[in-house]
Amino acid sequence: MANGFNVAVAGATGAVGVEMIKTLEKRNFPVKNLKLLASARSAGKTATFKGETIKIEEMTEESFKGVDIALFSAGGDISKQFRPAVVRAGAVMIDNSSAFRMDDDVPLVVPEVNPEDIKQHKGVIANPNCTTAIMLVAVAPLHRAKGLRRIVAATYQAASGAGAKGMDELLVQTRQLLDGQPIAPKAFAHRLAFNLIPHIDVFNENGYTKEELKMLNESRKMLHLPNLLVSCTCVRIPVLRAHSEALNLEFENDISVEEAREIIRKAPGVQLVDDPAAKSYPMPADATEKYDVLCGRIRQDISRNDKRGLDIFVSGDQVLKGAALNAVQIAELL
Amino acid sequence: MANGFNVAVAGATGAVGVEMIKTLEKRNFPVKNLKLLASARSAGKTATFKGETIKIEEMTEESFKGVDIALFSAGGDISKQFRPAVVRAGAVMIDNSSAFRMDDDVPLVVPEVNPEDIKQHKGVIANPNCTTAIMLVAVAPLHRAKGLRRIVAATYQAASGAGAKGMDELLVQTRQLLDGQPIAPKAFAHRLAFNLIPHIDVFNENGYTKEELKMLNESRKMLHLPNLLVSCTCVRIPVLRAHSEALNLEFENDISVEEAREIIRKAPGVQLVDDPAAKSYPMPADATEKYDVLCGRIRQDISRNDKRGLDIFVSGDQVLKGAALNAVQIAELL
Repeated sequence: MANGFNVAVAGATGAVGVEMIKTLEKRNFPVKNLKLLASARSAGKTATFKGETIKIEEMTEESFKGVDIALFSAGGDISKQFRPAVVRAGAVMIDNSSAFRMDDDVPLVVPEVNPEDIKQHKGVIANPNCTTAIMLVAVAPLHRAKGLRRIVAATYQAASGAGAKGMDELLVQTRQLLDGQPIAPKAFAHRLAFNLIPHIDVFNENGYTKEELKMLNESRKMLHLPNLLVSCTCVRIPVLRAHSEALNLEFENDISVEEAREIIRKAPGVQLVDDPAAKSYPMPADATEKYDVLCGRIRQDISRNDKRGLDIFVSGDQVLKGAALNAVQIAELL
Repeated sequence: MANGFNVAVAGATGAVGVEMIKTLEKRNFPVKNLKLLASARSAGKTATFKGETIKIEEMTEESFKGVDIALFSAGGDISKQFRPAVVRAGAVMIDNSSAFRMDDDVPLVVPEVNPEDIKQHKGVIANPNCTTAIMLVAVAPLHRAKGLRRIVAATYQAASGAGAKGMDELLVQTRQLLDGQPIAPKAFAHRLAFNLIPHIDVFNENGYTKEELKMLNESRKMLHLPNLLVSCTCVRIPVLRAHSEALNLEFENDISVEEAREIIRKAPGVQLVDDPAAKSYPMPADATEKYDVLCGRIRQDISRNDKRGLDIFVSGDQVLKGAALNAVQIAELL
């Protein structure tokens, strides 16, 4: 591996796959050879990496021979199908799907949150859910300082969570509505343009969606806090690709707004955007295509009789920190 | 008043004023004579009421002679300016602005929540903030059954909160973005199309906005709960005219999802829309132009170790229940 790593991107034509390729280039990841893999349908298309045109190949069990790192973003079923071949080839799979996230032998990693967990890997490292990753980049440093106990979250999630087809549907549907044309929702359960949908992923019998329960379970795993309490309402809104979250946080210890600002200011992967007088606060339009999660609207929670509560608001690029960037950062740790 | 009331609508050309006129007609309010008032700029325009064309007059201190009920939605300054003239004329002012809401001698009323307070009026009755009104229609019946202690709210507010110009800006700006044209935000502090803005009304020095503090102060007043705890994050999203809210509620007593559904099912002014398996939950597209607030996504709060917590989601028409309808309902109580 003198000249770097042999890297494969599985799901190279998807919204996240495309950003994985861009992110490998932009961050100057030491790539010796880049293999782009997709379904038979996309094989033969091309993509550009550092000025070179690379042909996209159909993914088969043979694809991973000689590969060191395989970045997967092709859905959980594909990840499950190819895991044995990847491990057999001696490659490390960095998987963006939810297939293995809660498996005991698979580290679930956000490099700013729990880089140490990466060492436990047995061939597979999981990327967390995008909403959880964006939240924890801001919340983990506050937790390390003050001890996190409980989160009440409400999310404002972008169309990109449903991939390129989600973004396309929002754009096309918006124009159809403006033009008074009929619409036909496909990527989402209902109309998203000029509307919101309080439903992401499937419903569990306790009334929460899987997406909402990921916020609980993945946070517990990554923060090593088995008793952390999290309630969440996940909502899709008509925004293209950055997720935002209103977070009400409870800590073991007192925390002030100034302390929180100082912690966020020094933390990696998160940028303090918190100057209300200048109308400066996190917004998806500003977080789009940024590596850092934006954090602001930091307030002492006035719905408590103590100083252990904080309200914050975050925005982060769902496709980058929520997926492609985080996967490349994991590869960098390797 | 044998044949009904002499009614004036002040601010008859605004988004709320227009809906007030429609609502008086649709609910068949007993109007003897309808006077439509606006600024000099709008005087001379006309509006239709029950098939009749009514000329809009410039509002002066003389306008209220003979008027029984004056519905005001022309901004707080106008309400303050004309209050003495309205009271002198013996009319009752039902005011949609925030000018008098927290005054001790002004009842703040949502008819489904605290109709009894109306009796205390001394010539002025205030309409609450739209976000508070929509929330309390769903929360008040739960409070009456189980004793409300604390609310953590995150809102998803429509462009209509900034009036007709807010809705126009969202529509025009969306088309400009789709067409790759430059945009120039005016009604809102930033771009709203395909974005969100976590900032409504001005900032207080504790970091909360006035809009967020209204949720606390107006709820305390209307529920007669001086110790109620409320924290709120108010966010403008690219939706036209219905507000939604993710509400995390804490009660004095245990409450189950089934109890909550039964309470909402029986409560006036709110409709239970809570069938996740059928993808049925509150959405602004469905709440628009409806009198009832929609309430669903009812869950036992899993971030607590007891049964006193509930998560719910509501959507309500900001222009109707949040403003015009509530004002007419107050008039009906009179």
